[in-house]
Amino acid sequence: MENIITLAHGSGGSATLKLIEQVFKKYFNNEILSQGDDCARLAMDGTKSLVFTTDSFVVTPVFFKGGDIGKLAVCGTVNDLSTSGAIPLYLSCGFIIEEGFSIEELEKIVESMSDTARECGVQIVTGDTKVVQKGAADKVFINTSGIGAVPDGICISGRNARVGDKIIITGTIGDHGSCILLERENMGFQAEIKSDCAPLSGLVRDMLEAASDIHVLRDPTRGGVATTLNEIALQSKVSIVIEEDKLPVKREVQGVCELLGMDPLYMANEGKLLSFVPAEKAEAVLEAVRRNKYGAEARIIGEVTGEGEPKVLLKALSGGSRIIGVLAGEQLPRIC
Amino acid sequence: MENIITLAHGSGGSATLKLIEQVFKKYFNNEILSQGDDCARLAMDGTKSLVFTTDSFVVTPVFFKGGDIGKLAVCGTVNDLSTSGAIPLYLSCGFIIEEGFSIEELEKIVESMSDTARECGVQIVTGDTKVVQKGAADKVFINTSGIGAVPDGICISGRNARVGDKIIITGTIGDHGSCILLERENMGFQAEIKSDCAPLSGLVRDMLEAASDIHVLRDPTRGGVATTLNEIALQSKVSIVIEEDKLPVKREVQGVCELLGMDPLYMANEGKLLSFVPAEKAEAVLEAVRRNKYGAEARIIGEVTGEGEPKVLLKALSGGSRIIGVLAGEQLPRIC
Repeated sequence: MENIITLAHGSGGSATLKLIEQVFKKYFNNEILSQGDDCARLAMDGTKSLVFTTDSFVVTPVFFKGGDIGKLAVCGTVNDLSTSGAIPLYLSCGFIIEEGFSIEELEKIVESMSDTARECGVQIVTGDTKVVQKGAADKVFINTSGIGAVPDGICISGRNARVGDKIIITGTIGDHGSCILLERENMGFQAEIKSDCAPLSGLVRDMLEAASDIHVLRDPTRGGVATTLNEIALQSKVSIVIEEDKLPVKREVQGVCELLGMDPLYMANEGKLLSFVPAEKAEAVLEAVRRNKYGAEARIIGEVTGEGEPKVLLKALSGGSRIIGVLAGEQLPRIC
Repeated sequence: MENIITLAHGSGGSATLKLIEQVFKKYFNNEILSQGDDCARLAMDGTKSLVFTTDSFVVTPVFFKGGDIGKLAVCGTVNDLSTSGAIPLYLSCGFIIEEGFSIEELEKIVESMSDTARECGVQIVTGDTKVVQKGAADKVFINTSGIGAVPDGICISGRNARVGDKIIITGTIGDHGSCILLERENMGFQAEIKSDCAPLSGLVRDMLEAASDIHVLRDPTRGGVATTLNEIALQSKVSIVIEEDKLPVKREVQGVCELLGMDPLYMANEGKLLSFVPAEKAEAVLEAVRRNKYGAEARIIGEVTGEGEPKVLLKALSGGSRIIGVLAGEQLPRIC
């Protein structure tokens, strides 16, 4: 292992996984942490099934088409709670602010957090603010941690994928990553790409009403759909096949990606879910997703085809197949 | 209100309180948040009484005498949970790391978090890592959020101070603040001042065994004993008198403060508690504290003398009295 932290360690891809294995798990090892989901399931006497999660947000720029760091900070943590099947209840927020940051902009961010929290019925109940000298941080970083309650009978985990499961994506892929890329680079052309940043607790509720036995839910953020599918394949020890011609990609996103040599499969999403559903329930879940405002373009993109060696295969448009791995290196730092 | 963020907004003193009132409470207002304690008390069907808290740590230097940012991050959140009378159970941790930071140093920090968590029986169950470009953060920032369970019959809050309560400090004041000050400034003289950084969950357990009806517990971190007492006076609408000659201050700390024109009453502590105890229980609690390894130098420093207008009076060594307010401006940025 190299001896300094690189941007790749924050990519959500292979370097991040290595850092987690070699440093964090080495010292923090416990049964709950090693479940490997985005949420920790807590064991507590006399309580419902509780989940707990945390995320820090360092996105640049702070304001972008379709959202801002505040909306993203609420959505990110609400979505992580939702992917365990939990109803998100409470959030904390910790601000690290650079001296000289505009209070007007801070207020916009806080208002946006408040609006997003209201939309999904969570309360921001505790917080903390630190200020560092000019140059010791870049504008503003936000941590949100969250607590949710899992309803009885729900058992969703990255470890639950089964042979035959259909894989549903709830909409177009790569929108958030492409939006941030365009906002950041002065590309000299116009493309109307908005981040898909959205709180998905309502969508998950609709999906669970259609089928309470959904096996896996995960939001493909850093590292994109390809990395998330690999994580699930690894946790469940299954092989997965997805079909390139089924992947919903906006024309503008495809265009930007082709121009810059990026692959939408590795671009971050902030308002999409990957769901693994027993085959006989797949159409019912798909219909429920499509009726939700955040799921109109949902599709079945593949299935779980075998047990044993974890792998993810892409059936290409051309007819051939290739293995797709986790994101290597860093595609775009500070995407979220 | 000024229109940019200043270091004072992160001081824990009057500017921080103003920012909380004018920006955060304006948008995040809810019954739980407005309780004003360091922990949020959660209302959940079918659960025990749960508390939830968050803190971000930006201390510089990252390693200091008596601790490091990792130990501080675990102690800070464990102590906030403990001051509600809760047993700390679960922590999250979110790292924001500057590109180029040493993995060996990161590992030392993680090991120190692990050791401290083990000492107080909490589990680190969920985490997140972000990496930002060189210059976009200073080395490493850590957020910890925590969940604890409050045993039946315990009701501790900054709102519960009552006339006649004795005020106990669990040891010498200003150690952490003076230590960081010395580490940071190249002062040209030797002083062996160590941070008091310590996890206080065991101390709180001992205190509650001596008297389960302790009214208030609070850790006087940023802003020091003076600011914390003012916060409690405000929450409980009481007046408080403390006596200068009872305040335990290490000789070296007193020396550094005098040299630099600082007041130990406003210096941060990271291993001390202020406790408001019914008068008839004060001696029993004091004895329990003194038997704990983190409380050998505990003292009764004052009492609650009246209701109504919130204020904190210091009876000076000289015989006179003066009102002491909350910290104004920023004494020492990035103390924690």
